Amino acid sequence: MIRIGVIGLGRIGKVHIRSICTRINTAKVVAVSDCCLNDEMKAFVKEFGIDNVGTDYKDILNNPEVDAVMICSSTDTHSSIGVEAIMAGKHVFCEKPVDHSLEKIQNVKDALKKNPVKFQVGFNRRYDHNFRAVREAVEAGKVGDVHITKITSRDPNPPSAEYAAVSGGMLLDMTIHDFDMVRYLTGAEPVKIYVEPAVLVDKAIGEAGDIDTAIITMQMSDGSIAVIDNSRKAVYGYDQRAEVFGSNGMAASKNDTLSTCIISSDNGIIEEKPLYFFLERYMDSFAKEVEEFVDAIENDKPVKTDIEDGLRAVVLALAGNKSIKEKRAVEISEIV
Amino acid sequence: MIRIGVIGLGRIGKVHIRSICTRINTAKVVAVSDCCLNDEMKAFVKEFGIDNVGTDYKDILNNPEVDAVMICSSTDTHSSIGVEAIMAGKHVFCEKPVDHSLEKIQNVKDALKKNPVKFQVGFNRRYDHNFRAVREAVEAGKVGDVHITKITSRDPNPPSAEYAAVSGGMLLDMTIHDFDMVRYLTGAEPVKIYVEPAVLVDKAIGEAGDIDTAIITMQMSDGSIAVIDNSRKAVYGYDQRAEVFGSNGMAASKNDTLSTCIISSDNGIIEEKPLYFFLERYMDSFAKEVEEFVDAIENDKPVKTDIEDGLRAVVLALAGNKSIKEKRAVEISEIV
Amino acid sequence: MIRIGVIGLGRIGKVHIRSICTRINTAKVVAVSDCCLNDEMKAFVKEFGIDNVGTDYKDILNNPEVDAVMICSSTDTHSSIGVEAIMAGKHVFCEKPVDHSLEKIQNVKDALKKNPVKFQVGFNRRYDHNFRAVREAVEAGKVGDVHITKITSRDPNPPSAEYAAVSGGMLLDMTIHDFDMVRYLTGAEPVKIYVEPAVLVDKAIGEAGDIDTAIITMQMSDGSIAVIDNSRKAVYGYDQRAEVFGSNGMAASKNDTLSTCIISSDNGIIEEKPLYFFLERYMDSFAKEVEEFVDAIENDKPVKTDIEDGLRAVVLALAGNKSIKEKRAVEISEIV
Amino acid sequence: MIRIGVIGLGRIGKVHIRSICTRINTAKVVAVSDCCLNDEMKAFVKEFGIDNVGTDYKDILNNPEVDAVMICSSTDTHSSIGVEAIMAGKHVFCEKPVDHSLEKIQNVKDALKKNPVKFQVGFNRRYDHNFRAVREAVEAGKVGDVHITKITSRDPNPPSAEYAAVSGGMLLDMTIHDFDMVRYLTGAEPVKIYVEPAVLVDKAIGEAGDIDTAIITMQMSDGSIAVIDNSRKAVYGYDQRAEVFGSNGMAASKNDTLSTCIISSDNGIIEEKPLYFFLERYMDSFAKEVEEFVDAIENDKPVKTDIEDGLRAVVLALAGNKSIKEKRAVEISEIV
Repeated sequence: MIRIGVIGLGRIGKVHIRSICTRINTAKVVAVSDCCLNDEMKAFVKEFGIDNVGTDYKDILNNPEVDAVMICSSTDTHSSIGVEAIMAGKHVFCEKPVDHSLEKIQNVKDALKKNPVKFQVGFNRRYDHNFRAVREAVEAGKVGDVHITKITSRDPNPPSAEYAAVSGGMLLDMTIHDFDMVRYLTGAEPVKIYVEPAVLVDKAIGEAGDIDTAIITMQMSDGSIAVIDNSRKAVYGYDQRAEVFGSNGMAASKNDTLSTCIISSDNGIIEEKPLYFFLERYMDSFAKEVEEFVDAIENDKPVKTDIEDGLRAVVLALAGNKSIKEKRAVEISEIV
Repeated sequence: MIRIGVIGLGRIGKVHIRSICTRINTAKVVAVSDCCLNDEMKAFVKEFGIDNVGTDYKDILNNPEVDAVMICSSTDTHSSIGVEAIMAGKHVFCEKPVDHSLEKIQNVKDALKKNPVKFQVGFNRRYDHNFRAVREAVEAGKVGDVHITKITSRDPNPPSAEYAAVSGGMLLDMTIHDFDMVRYLTGAEPVKIYVEPAVLVDKAIGEAGDIDTAIITMQMSDGSIAVIDNSRKAVYGYDQRAEVFGSNGMAASKNDTLSTCIISSDNGIIEEKPLYFFLERYMDSFAKEVEEFVDAIENDKPVKTDIEDGLRAVVLALAGNKSIKEKRAVEISEIV
Repeated sequence: MIRIGVIGLGRIGKVHIRSICTRINTAKVVAVSDCCLNDEMKAFVKEFGIDNVGTDYKDILNNPEVDAVMICSSTDTHSSIGVEAIMAGKHVFCEKPVDHSLEKIQNVKDALKKNPVKFQVGFNRRYDHNFRAVREAVEAGKVGDVHITKITSRDPNPPSAEYAAVSGGMLLDMTIHDFDMVRYLTGAEPVKIYVEPAVLVDKAIGEAGDIDTAIITMQMSDGSIAVIDNSRKAVYGYDQRAEVFGSNGMAASKNDTLSTCIISSDNGIIEEKPLYFFLERYMDSFAKEVEEFVDAIENDKPVKTDIEDGLRAVVLALAGNKSIKEKRAVEISEIV
Repeated sequence: MIRIGVIGLGRIGKVHIRSICTRINTAKVVAVSDCCLNDEMKAFVKEFGIDNVGTDYKDILNNPEVDAVMICSSTDTHSSIGVEAIMAGKHVFCEKPVDHSLEKIQNVKDALKKNPVKFQVGFNRRYDHNFRAVREAVEAGKVGDVHITKITSRDPNPPSAEYAAVSGGMLLDMTIHDFDMVRYLTGAEPVKIYVEPAVLVDKAIGEAGDIDTAIITMQMSDGSIAVIDNSRKAVYGYDQRAEVFGSNGMAASKNDTLSTCIISSDNGIIEEKPLYFFLERYMDSFAKEVEEFVDAIENDKPVKTDIEDGLRAVVLALAGNKSIKEKRAVEISEIV
């Protein structure tokens, strides 16, 4: 039974606590902390019978009863807490992105070299049933050599302009999942990137220095081409699709819906909209990624979504930002 | 926290134990029994931390720490254990069918009159997301007045002829869920039934006196018509669809699949087969029906799937069997 | 070049004239007649350059320049004109139904024995791309042994009660196509029929002695079961689907739409409704059946949709009417 | 009745002759020519009763019985014959591309200024039912302000490397339709283009100096972004889809199939592949574009797909070629 400490009781911290407490038999949450602990958080953890609740994550790192920590705090603290946790000998599950700074991610890598604990990055979409099925089709050769990879990733609603201003920009905040997905689905690395950006959803986001719409094209190391289309607002809901096309065919996934019910009426044949947002669509994947993390610890396996994956996605976001700024295609090797 | 005793550790008993232990926060399993308790069963309950394990269900009925029992034993024991449990003051969740004999179901009704505990019948499909969405569309008036209700219900593999011989026949064993579904979706009662039976899947089933294929037509109390098509073997998997057609349109559900991934190849455009069988397709509904049962106890609400529902489905199966035997349409009033 | 005379310039007569003039290179329309010839009809035929237009079909039968006739007049005249045309040595394409009376159909059969010209019956749906694809899948063994055949056939709008009163009833007027389709798809003959009728669309139709909704179950000569569901009014349009299920799988067809365009909006994911009615849905099949007829004449092949097919569908409708009247399953052998 | 002369009896010339002779009542083909007239061509036109067949297109231009010409000869002759036809006072339907040279297209424009006959360019896909439905949804405001336009255009089989070498390259030969489609669907003009090219289908095509795979991104005049993905070979057939996404939702079209039949088997749920290639998929659109051309002549309306459309698509292809060569985003204003 792996004993887990959860650092950060925001939305994603709660998701993981719920998963571990209700779905994972081989792990339990033994301690939690949040620097801004409030009554609502206290009530939440109490519901799951967790008694050890504090405000200082260091208490968790110093707790010998804790085998592993999940870093669910704000992004700017991921890497430093990560390094501390590694040096404290705890296995680490770190939410994405590890950091916006390549130097700070390097610090984590350096720490891991010194103290090679398990370190998994929270790219949960790799554990989604639809994307996994596409990946498995690619691995099984059903697509043949990959030629074109397409990812559609559109949120149902944009963040506030205030959030956009401090988020590091859409590519680091939202597209980072899609960058990882391109790497996951193809098994190849982007070598060049071109971003066509736009501000079409909310002018305030543009005034805050960010974008809300983009088409991102990448040349891949296997010679194939990948393209991501992003929007911060799809009125019909969270649009999350992938398509991998190659010499033998195509594997493509569609959105999930709450039910398969179709209404035929005088107004048309109407299917349900996609599941609303990531908490609805990806709930299952959040549990599955933690299951794999726990399994890696229990059975001393390498983690499959590791610090290198965390690094590469950030590198792509930074290269994309450079492409936006300089209005040209950017070689990934210009970044690292 | 509702304390539950589970009687019967077969397939469905285990499903319920797993649901209660991993998904329902307001209930816990405090005792289990199986008349043929074996090591595999013991290991199963141990995994969920259940210590009170025995062979005599009466120990559970006599246990003052038990608020409610789930009767998951063999069908022939449902009604007698049900009566005993009611008289012991336990709330009861009883697997379907309550019994094949109307008299024995009446015994349960009589017991409930004397001691009105909560008594829910395990028609789990009412809690399936797809059928529920169809029902909600009907209730919301999207279909208008119901004219035609169609249910397709096909198993991926037939039972053995030995099982068929003692099962009470396909209508009582398999179609019983579909009879309940017709009532659930329409909110109306069948008043006449005609069954066109066939033995097309396995001759041995026919030699055992049962059927494996049928089209079942029912005139409903609201004047509409319902039709069920059943087969014991669909090579493409568990086919579970419903369609309600009326004056304003149609609500129809499709099968669930493991993912939305579609493979386009030289051989065609290939979607996944339906989820294999009821454990895959209906796992969620098994948890939801128990959640509703627990909620009815906790908040003293009427159960929504009650002994009358249990009775009506059996009446329809018996009327259907009479139709098969006498090769004619049978009024439901001929049965009760 | 086969020279065709068309008898009857109603809706279906015009459909055939247009097909022959615009799509069939090996035939031409050389004469037409309608007992109630009007200016609109004259303008129609003039558009296609047809000069020989009259009111008496006998002129066509006596015209040595005519190789074949298409009988598109009112149903009550089909068989008598058919007999005359056969005896005049013309090949005959006869709209369905040949007649409501088995005796009159027998007259046609007798005439064909004496003078074996080509005689094709207008069951155009056999030539529809969707139903044909289902049939071809069955013939190719993709379904294996047929177990269950399902046909959904719903019109977008009911006829007037006045029409219903003189139409011979829904089974002879509308379901007749579906009876033929069951035979076509399965290659088997119904041996028993049970009809569950209803009047749900328009009370006036019921008061006129007809029905507007039905579920029709048939036991087939190969042991399989077939079921048709009919409604005179589907608000979402003409619903024409088929499903053949068997030991190796299922072949099922869906409706056609004007385009594949899907609108995703805040209100749902909306596909187009089916093509409105038979002129839209089956236009192509009307041309294909005539092509086959012309080919049979040109190359002296047997017609594939013959007088026997015309007879069997009427027999089924009469057996169905008997089932409605006597509220019981009727053996087809009770009729012929 | 518009009298048409067809210049060029290759594949597309025959398509138009067939359409005019079998589907268009207001036009007829009165003369045809092909510089390499052969017996097969002669037999083809004879089938349609066309007597005036020659080898010199000038005979058609000089023929006072000809109202309009369709230029279906090889691409390099389009513009010069076009200019001659205009100056001869004939209305012109010109196959795409008008020319690879902007100067030669300008010659056509100049001629039209002098002699303003009707001049339509053969972008038939605008007349396809699916793309038209998407466009109509955009025009009806169902998408709102356009944000992202996506076009998938993949051929079932690549041309020979020999053909590729002389075709002007994939962008001028194949993508030209997609460039026009972007303009048609959005009603906006591309202002910047970036092409990510690849040779993945056939190395010989690369050796011949061409590409066979590409992702093409365009910034549009309305601020939106468009992306085209092209491949010369999709093993599952001709893949022709479009998707327009905006502030109110999305309109998307799928491929056409020969039938809606779906086979459910042990191997999966299998739909038909797309219609094989452009002759199958776009046959109807070829007739519709000519109908519109004839209507423009008959009723003296402006043509809707005009020389400017012909020019803009070529400009985009040339800008795209420049992007490939210079590996950078190219402003369209750099070309014209």
